[in-house]
Amino acid sequence: MDNFVFISPTKFYFGKGAELKVGEYLSSIGVKNVLIVSGKTSAEKSGLLGSIREKLDGAGIKHHTLLGVVPNPRDDKVYEGIKICRENNVDFVLGVGGGSAIDTAKAIAAGVPYEGDFWDFYEDRALVKKALKIGTVITLPATGSEGSRSSVITKIDGMVKRGLNTDFIRPVVSFMNPELTFSLPPYQTAAGITDMLAHIMERYLSNTRGVDLTDRMCEAVMKSIISEGKKVMENPTDYDARANLFWAGTIAHNDVLGIGRVQDWASHQIEHELSALYDVAHGAGLAVVMPNFMRYTLDHDVSRYAQFAVRVFDCDPDFQDLRKTALEGIDRLSQFLKSIGMPLTFAEIGAKEDDIPLLVSKVRRNNQDSVGYFMPLSSADVEAVYRLCL
Amino acid sequence: MDNFVFISPTKFYFGKGAELKVGEYLSSIGVKNVLIVSGKTSAEKSGLLGSIREKLDGAGIKHHTLLGVVPNPRDDKVYEGIKICRENNVDFVLGVGGGSAIDTAKAIAAGVPYEGDFWDFYEDRALVKKALKIGTVITLPATGSEGSRSSVITKIDGMVKRGLNTDFIRPVVSFMNPELTFSLPPYQTAAGITDMLAHIMERYLSNTRGVDLTDRMCEAVMKSIISEGKKVMENPTDYDARANLFWAGTIAHNDVLGIGRVQDWASHQIEHELSALYDVAHGAGLAVVMPNFMRYTLDHDVSRYAQFAVRVFDCDPDFQDLRKTALEGIDRLSQFLKSIGMPLTFAEIGAKEDDIPLLVSKVRRNNQDSVGYFMPLSSADVEAVYRLCL
Repeated sequence: MDNFVFISPTKFYFGKGAELKVGEYLSSIGVKNVLIVSGKTSAEKSGLLGSIREKLDGAGIKHHTLLGVVPNPRDDKVYEGIKICRENNVDFVLGVGGGSAIDTAKAIAAGVPYEGDFWDFYEDRALVKKALKIGTVITLPATGSEGSRSSVITKIDGMVKRGLNTDFIRPVVSFMNPELTFSLPPYQTAAGITDMLAHIMERYLSNTRGVDLTDRMCEAVMKSIISEGKKVMENPTDYDARANLFWAGTIAHNDVLGIGRVQDWASHQIEHELSALYDVAHGAGLAVVMPNFMRYTLDHDVSRYAQFAVRVFDCDPDFQDLRKTALEGIDRLSQFLKSIGMPLTFAEIGAKEDDIPLLVSKVRRNNQDSVGYFMPLSSADVEAVYRLCL
Repeated sequence: MDNFVFISPTKFYFGKGAELKVGEYLSSIGVKNVLIVSGKTSAEKSGLLGSIREKLDGAGIKHHTLLGVVPNPRDDKVYEGIKICRENNVDFVLGVGGGSAIDTAKAIAAGVPYEGDFWDFYEDRALVKKALKIGTVITLPATGSEGSRSSVITKIDGMVKRGLNTDFIRPVVSFMNPELTFSLPPYQTAAGITDMLAHIMERYLSNTRGVDLTDRMCEAVMKSIISEGKKVMENPTDYDARANLFWAGTIAHNDVLGIGRVQDWASHQIEHELSALYDVAHGAGLAVVMPNFMRYTLDHDVSRYAQFAVRVFDCDPDFQDLRKTALEGIDRLSQFLKSIGMPLTFAEIGAKEDDIPLLVSKVRRNNQDSVGYFMPLSSADVEAVYRLCL
């Protein structure tokens, strides 16, 4: 096991009516002026923003609203939000919606006190040194952004998707009401399930030895996501299944499953360019990339993949041919993703074979040596993974 | 799943040499004057306290030392520590050692700014409203006190053992170096393993339905504790096994395994009076009580115990007779505890049948209606559990 530092200071209010605590809680930590950041219309139409504003009003907290954040959130809304915050002395940014709204809120919070262009942070040209406080009312279990130190933004110029990781942008509070996820369309629900599984796989695929505890915890959470995910797809208003899935999304990405081990993150890098170029849901892109990445790297560590197959998908181990067992696990993952309506191929997400060289060059733009840490990938390897997705 | 609030703000520095960061970190959060709280002699003799003092000196932080905390820590050392803190304007209490040192540090930290008797907090006669900041250098994986909001102290007058739970006493930082646990004697190592398992069982034994995620996470951590526990008993300097076990002790009690469910805690209450009266290690007392509590409550929820048997101890389920499977799981737990050197009966810990009425009256002293929440126990039930331990 490797040395590590772990902290997860976000306060989670979880359960029915959780979002109604927003006024009281923000008041208790001295917040005066909030920027609410949300998507196009759904949180407004559902009445969620209205009830949040009502609670803020009740607590004597001023508020402004920035709407129109899109999936795979873009830099234009970040600039717009920074301007609103500066002009109105906003001291707290509240992301309401899915990971896109929250990631935008995080970028705004980091950008407000910074003199330069916030994009510097996402291109590793500057380090975040302070940020406004951030909170979330999350309505889409998927990104784990409600408890994470990560934000991913796409720069419209060139459609470049980049991530930022820093403790300064970790939410101080997240309000999570599983009932707010009842109305999520099946496709978004499934994309969220895929994203959670991928967050765990990126941690599970590690060359670090002696990490039995996090191995088993990863396997447990993946099993639960698969089991509860099936229930939710069948009955979208199953409260307990929605609740388990919601919290699994948080656990999957607050790093409690990744301590003491080198993580991979190749699938995410390879996928990011797909969703940036074709504007496909991140989870859907991962459903295409991840199983094929796993097939490509199978021989790098057959025993790890066999362990995944046996412990997560209950495959019967073939001790004479563990590679067969390992492959069966990956195939069952693909079958599960297909069963919840996810795409498995380039064609299904409108991606084109001819674009592969462009995709590879975008993935490799910032990588000096290789992509990922489980089996470090060269450009030829990345291309081969994309080709497996055809 | 029940509504819940979750926060786990302790910063953990984990790995080789972790404790050497104490000076730098305490300096970074503005600490000026530390009270080091530790046991009789081992941390002093091993040189651990010397290296901590050296790092504090290097960071320009003053320090005082309170030694002599005993297992099942007592109120006398708390009063002594409060006096030292008040007389020297101490602003940070650092527990060094096992749960006893840390629980004492927590009691001192809560007691310093309180005008009344700190014992008021432990008897629910007053609420903690502030406390000094607390940190830990933990050398005994067991209590989870390094990340928890709990402290258990025994009042010498009457030998009454009582617990306090409040966010004010949660450590802000814990330094965990698995190598510091290499020299733990087998008995203490085994008692720690038992304590961890019990912390999880208290959460696992719940009547709350629809909590698949935490069920599976509990099972995963228990499996890992059993697997790594066996390795550590065979090879006390197996770094990875020690590291997994160390972190499992934290995870077992920072409540990430208990969210969204009513917890039990009957075994702990029944055991506390054993360790208070006979001064036996808490973990050893739990090894006696817990399996018998499980046998006594078996018919309250056979399917839960069968799930435990199958998922934690890999028992082959007998679908015609799940009760048999359930019992087999409990028996395997007893066998495991015995295999690591834990006692299973009153006789082995020097407890006496004649004391049972006294033990029952002590357990019930503060309980209006019943003990525990899984299967609420009357006095007759508590007595029956003790009798199963004979």
